[in-house]
Amino acid sequence: MSTTPPPAGLQLRSLVKPDAELEISLVSVPTPSPAPDEVVVRIEATPINPSDIGLLFGAADIGTAQLSGAPGRPVVTARIPERAMKAMAARVGESLPVGNEGAGVVIAAGESAAARALLGRTVAVIGGAMYAQYRCLKAADCLPLPEGTAPADGASCFVNPLTALGMVETMRREGLRALVHTAAASNLGQMLNRICIKDGIGLVNIVRKPEQEALLRSQGAAQVCDASAPTFMEDLTNSLVATGATIAFDATGGGRLAGQILTCMEAAINRTAREYSRYGSTTHKQVYLYGSLDPAPTEFTRNFGMAWGMGGWLLFPFLQRIGPAAAQALRERVVAELKTTFASHYTKEISLAQALQPAEIAVYGRRATGAKYLINPNKGVAAS
Amino acid sequence: MSTTPPPAGLQLRSLVKPDAELEISLVSVPTPSPAPDEVVVRIEATPINPSDIGLLFGAADIGTAQLSGAPGRPVVTARIPERAMKAMAARVGESLPVGNEGAGVVIAAGESAAARALLGRTVAVIGGAMYAQYRCLKAADCLPLPEGTAPADGASCFVNPLTALGMVETMRREGLRALVHTAAASNLGQMLNRICIKDGIGLVNIVRKPEQEALLRSQGAAQVCDASAPTFMEDLTNSLVATGATIAFDATGGGRLAGQILTCMEAAINRTAREYSRYGSTTHKQVYLYGSLDPAPTEFTRNFGMAWGMGGWLLFPFLQRIGPAAAQALRERVVAELKTTFASHYTKEISLAQALQPAEIAVYGRRATGAKYLINPNKGVAAS
Repeated sequence: MSTTPPPAGLQLRSLVKPDAELEISLVSVPTPSPAPDEVVVRIEATPINPSDIGLLFGAADIGTAQLSGAPGRPVVTARIPERAMKAMAARVGESLPVGNEGAGVVIAAGESAAARALLGRTVAVIGGAMYAQYRCLKAADCLPLPEGTAPADGASCFVNPLTALGMVETMRREGLRALVHTAAASNLGQMLNRICIKDGIGLVNIVRKPEQEALLRSQGAAQVCDASAPTFMEDLTNSLVATGATIAFDATGGGRLAGQILTCMEAAINRTAREYSRYGSTTHKQVYLYGSLDPAPTEFTRNFGMAWGMGGWLLFPFLQRIGPAAAQALRERVVAELKTTFASHYTKEISLAQALQPAEIAVYGRRATGAKYLINPNKGVAAS
Repeated sequence: MSTTPPPAGLQLRSLVKPDAELEISLVSVPTPSPAPDEVVVRIEATPINPSDIGLLFGAADIGTAQLSGAPGRPVVTARIPERAMKAMAARVGESLPVGNEGAGVVIAAGESAAARALLGRTVAVIGGAMYAQYRCLKAADCLPLPEGTAPADGASCFVNPLTALGMVETMRREGLRALVHTAAASNLGQMLNRICIKDGIGLVNIVRKPEQEALLRSQGAAQVCDASAPTFMEDLTNSLVATGATIAFDATGGGRLAGQILTCMEAAINRTAREYSRYGSTTHKQVYLYGSLDPAPTEFTRNFGMAWGMGGWLLFPFLQRIGPAAAQALRERVVAELKTTFASHYTKEISLAQALQPAEIAVYGRRATGAKYLINPNKGVAAS
């Protein structure tokens, strides 16, 4: 028999209303009884990743956030610009749970042996709706963490570690040995830097501030280019010559950075070109946009020949493409190196109610490197 | 023994000078004696394709074109904006011949049987330097045209026909059954429309003027969207729903059109979507930029999910990728349907000297649909 979980728990919801208002609230939802192959996890740590912020706030202007509701049951509302409502059409009226991943303790299990084996274990989980006190999922989707691992240490086992490993794996499958990463001082960027140092892969780190360059250099990064420096284009070209990187992963998405990377790749390749070709180099140059830290339009000047590509890159389709065995190998590496290569650092741990405070939103909503929040959905909540 | 070719002939040259001046001139070059496996072709028809204009004028401002030189040996010069000189660096000081493709009569041949068999034949040829009275090339690179074919009919056997067939072949190899094409009323676009009608392929034609829409509709096109119409985005979405096209070939390159196509593809796919996905549809949407009719920067708003790609597409790397047998099959189809599917239409036939007249440059240099020029390098030239 399974332990009986609490009958209900708080869950964070995001709702886009037809009148262009976003509403984020906490609702009490019944805790499902686990099916035979399922477990109930008491979520104790769940990060606010940029991809969560996208779902949380949609196209709303977080500068307009207004708090209402009772203490402990806050409601925050914000205006959505009318021009952005078209992109929101598919989610209007749908009260959506949020939170890609997290970690916690298994407090109830179905009757299967696999489920019962997890009772009391600290597990890392992915699958959405983690901004909640309790989450019921398949035992097979839980990643048991080594004894003694705190939920906070396992909260970010999937999105950042698998994204960083996925970039390296994408690079390898394209037959390449070096890559470029932007917003490189982020938790994800620091992980990628550790992977590349460990695996002997060339990495060009692009950051936006001198202190971010200093941070990465202190962590052993050989190639760091500060996009705010007047010599950025030259610095980047030199780093591309040094590493031979022709593939990049860009977290910013908007603005001119993706195009600048292609421009510098072409310049780096042409440093050794022997004759003029009107179509540019024949070496394929690729930038994958995997994030949207800059929501502005993407703009580029096509001065990098014809052998180039730009496109979206997303973790889950990538994992599907490489198949379950290859994906499992990546997951096992994450657990094995959880406190070293894949360690995450958080600015602050907050409760669900605090996540709805405009003052907190103003900080984590900026998606700024170095302002990473962790939610503990069972913090400051009376056991129900 | 081979027939003896004339000892010299005129050849058009394009030169970028270090002081940011472009100079186009006619020079007399000796006619090479053909090696055993070579022939000399008297070029009688060679088109001015957009890709030729790129090499011909580089980054020069054609509005500044100035004529000088003796009659029959004109020289035209134009200013190159300083900011564009960096992109021209690799060709500064190189006097480059121009002209991708053409057709003419074999007037001399080397000793091999293959070369001698072509003597007197009208052949289509590709390989650059066709804006010249005589061109020496390998017999194997000549495409013999059926008896009675005029050089003007065979002048555009390669670039446009193989590009149109290459688009269809690219679509097929990605497992798709419909495609989108921009600048669709061009010679190339009309060819693609005839191919798609003949082969039963869905084609969405994007044009920029109502009269271009009328032209394509008169040629049997079912889906034509006028980008100048206020209902363009809606029209395009409807055409994408009707055809299911998720791949596009864009000749314009610059501006917002490529992104608008991705936006409308996503909207078309989501008309039948059953649930909201924060990452957009999982159907891959692709736009290949194969031309640069609009030299402005490319700009797009990323409102089409994460399953998308944009990239350069170029005929010759494509032909290399599919291999010689597949490429030869495409060439044979061109010859078989030269006067039907692959017929080209020209606004005007001009001489080499006329190609250097600013008044003519002002017309063909615009690269406008419906202003296609054919050069006859042996027109108005005394036999040398």
